[in-house]
Amino acid sequence: MSADSPDNLRHVTVVGVGLLGGSAGLALKAHDPTIRVAGVGRRMESLRKGLEMGAIDTAHLDLTEPAATTDLVILATPVGAFERHMRAAAALRVGAIVTDVGSTKAGVVRIAGRILGHGRFVGSHPMAGSEQRGPAFARADLFAGATCILTPTRQTPPEVTARVERLWRWMGMRTVRMAPGAHDRAVARISHLPHALASLLMRLPGRRDLDVAASGFRDATRLASGDTEMWRDIFLTNRRHILAAFDDFEEELLALRDLVDLGDGPGLQRFFAAAKKRRDSTVARAIVDRRVAVE
Amino acid sequence: MSADSPDNLRHVTVVGVGLLGGSAGLALKAHDPTIRVAGVGRRMESLRKGLEMGAIDTAHLDLTEPAATTDLVILATPVGAFERHMRAAAALRVGAIVTDVGSTKAGVVRIAGRILGHGRFVGSHPMAGSEQRGPAFARADLFAGATCILTPTRQTPPEVTARVERLWRWMGMRTVRMAPGAHDRAVARISHLPHALASLLMRLPGRRDLDVAASGFRDATRLASGDTEMWRDIFLTNRRHILAAFDDFEEELLALRDLVDLGDGPGLQRFFAAAKKRRDSTVARAIVDRRVAVE
Repeated sequence: MSADSPDNLRHVTVVGVGLLGGSAGLALKAHDPTIRVAGVGRRMESLRKGLEMGAIDTAHLDLTEPAATTDLVILATPVGAFERHMRAAAALRVGAIVTDVGSTKAGVVRIAGRILGHGRFVGSHPMAGSEQRGPAFARADLFAGATCILTPTRQTPPEVTARVERLWRWMGMRTVRMAPGAHDRAVARISHLPHALASLLMRLPGRRDLDVAASGFRDATRLASGDTEMWRDIFLTNRRHILAAFDDFEEELLALRDLVDLGDGPGLQRFFAAAKKRRDSTVARAIVDRRVAVE
Repeated sequence: MSADSPDNLRHVTVVGVGLLGGSAGLALKAHDPTIRVAGVGRRMESLRKGLEMGAIDTAHLDLTEPAATTDLVILATPVGAFERHMRAAAALRVGAIVTDVGSTKAGVVRIAGRILGHGRFVGSHPMAGSEQRGPAFARADLFAGATCILTPTRQTPPEVTARVERLWRWMGMRTVRMAPGAHDRAVARISHLPHALASLLMRLPGRRDLDVAASGFRDATRLASGDTEMWRDIFLTNRRHILAAFDDFEEELLALRDLVDLGDGPGLQRFFAAAKKRRDSTVARAIVDRRVAVE
């Protein structure tokens, strides 16, 4: 897998040395051991673990320190902390660029344009991860085989997008470009709504019910074990699209409720068959080998 | 694992040689190769596959044939076909008993009492299986380590319940007893609602959205690939509890919607934290080793 780093990348700073940030550091160094990775974080424990694992070479409590020598900054904290770190990135040297791994994009791209300018930022959303948290779960192959969505705007210089695209491809990702708003609408439906439902599912059964639950329930609720701070920020920064997804979902739920209420057997079978057909022909086939973590 | 069959079981009839029925046959014969298993089904293809795999010894299109010599009948078709098969079981010899693997119980138990009498039936619900269908996916260890819920009533002879309990335990299951109504209420929340949500989740995203979906979405929707006829019957026979679960769910969804609408960060974090805590302390810990099938 080792190959020359794209665009002669020598020094990368990862802000937030958790599951994603730690995995980015490990992946970079697995591909080119001579790349220096600086880790920025507020928890000494995560930084120490990152150093121990070889995900980062140096540890810093503030981005200002490594900013002057870095070629690339990857923001990997919860989205709510991005603005603060972008301000610290003002000291970046000429030619250095910034990307992120955040799960919402329109707000992030807007703030980056205001603080960093449009010339040195492009948003990234690697569709990889798990409900696990912290650098201890980081792995060099977390991104391999998964999809990374890039969200350039009309103001993003094509070369900046291309550089970040090459970076993720170098780590083994398939890249897809979407406008920030289109991204946020899509992930509200394929990621944020599923997360909400998983968490809601945990609220209904009593302890005695949970005692007899099986692997189906466990898998249907897996997302609910995700990092709560990260998900709070996602729901705060994608409110409009999440509310729209909730509304569409509720309409579908009420239609299903009617089928149950009426005891409409053929209607229920059509409902289940349509969902099965759609799933079997899409995600059930395509994502088999992209699995990154199971319990 | 091999051990003498409980209660000197010599001849078992499995009605419906699919994933569960086929697995029951394989498990019985793995534990005691001298047990004879008769398979009843309407599809010659499934019966042939069951014979080939060694899940059944003889194939029949009607239960009447093996009924006269069998010690135990296991109904493993979709629940909607149980009544017809119970009528055919009228010819069972004295001392022979009937159980099932159906996912709903109050209606099944009521019909069994009417057709078979209360003396020779007890309901079973092995909480094992997967979204896969058909005898090709059957396996001798499908039930091992999973929970089987038995639903005796006050009219069920204790010895009948004990015999069926010993059977499932012999196959490696943990057994739990619940009243039929309590069972149906519980599974509406831990099984039927999750299935509905998984199917509903498949309706919102467009093809382009699905193209960038990751393992989280794939796992959250896994249940939607289940057998449509089986799920139609489950939803038709547990309407009251499913509607109640829908109503409770909708109330929870609206409360979450308010948190999102208000942008209530602390409230959202509390919501996610409560779900995470509940899951991490229950199903995430307890069901790790009971997993039976993944894609």
